[in-house]
Amino acid sequence: MTTATLSQPSTKDPYPSRHAPEPQLVERQDPVVYGEPRGGLSALHRRAHETRGFLAFPGFLHADELRTYQEEAERLRTLDALAGRPEVITEPGGGEVRSVFEVHKLSEVIDRLSRHPKILNVVTEILGGDVYLHQSRVNYKPGFRGKEFYWHSDFETWHLEDGMPRMRAVSCSISLTENTPFNGPLMLIPGSHQIYVSCVGETPENHYESSLKKQEYGVPDDQSLARLVEAGGIEAPTGPAGSATFFDCNTMHGSNSNISPLPRTNVFFVYNSVENTLVEPFSGQKPRPGYIADRGDASPLVAA
Amino acid sequence: MTTATLSQPSTKDPYPSRHAPEPQLVERQDPVVYGEPRGGLSALHRRAHETRGFLAFPGFLHADELRTYQEEAERLRTLDALAGRPEVITEPGGGEVRSVFEVHKLSEVIDRLSRHPKILNVVTEILGGDVYLHQSRVNYKPGFRGKEFYWHSDFETWHLEDGMPRMRAVSCSISLTENTPFNGPLMLIPGSHQIYVSCVGETPENHYESSLKKQEYGVPDDQSLARLVEAGGIEAPTGPAGSATFFDCNTMHGSNSNISPLPRTNVFFVYNSVENTLVEPFSGQKPRPGYIADRGDASPLVAA
Repeated sequence: MTTATLSQPSTKDPYPSRHAPEPQLVERQDPVVYGEPRGGLSALHRRAHETRGFLAFPGFLHADELRTYQEEAERLRTLDALAGRPEVITEPGGGEVRSVFEVHKLSEVIDRLSRHPKILNVVTEILGGDVYLHQSRVNYKPGFRGKEFYWHSDFETWHLEDGMPRMRAVSCSISLTENTPFNGPLMLIPGSHQIYVSCVGETPENHYESSLKKQEYGVPDDQSLARLVEAGGIEAPTGPAGSATFFDCNTMHGSNSNISPLPRTNVFFVYNSVENTLVEPFSGQKPRPGYIADRGDASPLVAA
Repeated sequence: MTTATLSQPSTKDPYPSRHAPEPQLVERQDPVVYGEPRGGLSALHRRAHETRGFLAFPGFLHADELRTYQEEAERLRTLDALAGRPEVITEPGGGEVRSVFEVHKLSEVIDRLSRHPKILNVVTEILGGDVYLHQSRVNYKPGFRGKEFYWHSDFETWHLEDGMPRMRAVSCSISLTENTPFNGPLMLIPGSHQIYVSCVGETPENHYESSLKKQEYGVPDDQSLARLVEAGGIEAPTGPAGSATFFDCNTMHGSNSNISPLPRTNVFFVYNSVENTLVEPFSGQKPRPGYIADRGDASPLVAA
């Protein structure tokens, strides 16, 4: 992919989306690694994150601390006190728990994990200073019937629906189960974080040609995805429970379904720079609830 | 998995299914490799097929012959003359072509491929003599929106719905596109061909009309699948276009969805021993149409 094919943003908003009849590829306007080297990352890791938009660390957590988090995730999944709360997202029919949001406020154990020194060392170096939690959740992808999650840039959603101004946030996914090529692992498109895919927001010309597929907001188009994959390929970090994947807020990612018997559970934290706190959503609509996107005081996290 | 946990078949039919309220694991009552060594397979391949239930050959076809088959598959997919014919299966809720059945009768090129000497050498050695085509098709799994195909043993369906008496058939899948871990490749459970999973429930009339899009009857239960995977794991052969995978009719297999931009197209032949021709379906219902399960004269295939 050459920069000649990329557009410069044409409005005051550097990352417009969902407003035009045609998708657009826009160059990233922000740094990727903000901080100076200070031991959180090796030089190789810094360069890898800069150019690829993610970092995978197999065996990031020790086996004994891992067990604590696995038990806590299982406790939260089955905790009667949480049933019916909006933070708990269940499967449409069966009632099986799919995600629990804002888990760092529901669980001291998860709160501690979110401030794990090893995690904060990485994210504060990438984001260049203090961070706060934009979002936290535990995801439970069951075996046999785990659903796919289509490609998306988190930043597109956070910018449009939550009012995150710039690309200065990083996600950290800690696996609590083994990730194999077969249980619907997180797939990332290396290098995609450098390109902002501005999604269509109006009915495109010739809509009838694809009208059998329901068009939804914030979904990148086929051609843009094909170009990103052509340029960067696809990678899916696999490894034992306790592995960590850090990825830039604009790295395109998704996952296929999981018909394997192996469930896939992970804890997911989104760290945002304290210099990048939320403003009004760029979609012009009202913000999403605080348990999905924190709009609180954005106090810097302190290592646990 | 120990044989102590397996049942012997309790009825005259060695492979009963869809008749009991509880699933059952039954020991295979048939050989896997029927023929004597005669150069079709190496000793290692024979043993691998015997113990694992499948064989993968990357780069099975030469590049120039491969191109012929790729062009033919594309021609068939878009051939106006085939539109609306029962052999052409479309995606649920969409018009995109998912499979074309009985392609060896619709296309001389595919007929020739079905009698490729390299293929027949393998299958006649495995099945111990002459074979005929039980089924042929081209499968088109599109990029972005390719659907998963749940775990199943082909033999369970062929036995119940087509009246295939014994386990003496082999499938050959020739990939016409690259298979990667990301585009929903065929997943197989090594060793599962030694166990027959007797499924719960009954088969409704004309089940094939929906089962080719989405399987609902003859679906193995979670616990049996978990046990098979615990014992044998999961493998998904990957490789360039032109690779071949041969697998036993009772090897448990399936595939996850495909959100990657890479489509997955393959030609699929099922070879049955001429000593294993179809009888009345063991479900007691009327047989499926000939384009899904050949009930013709079962003349031995002659190498092209």
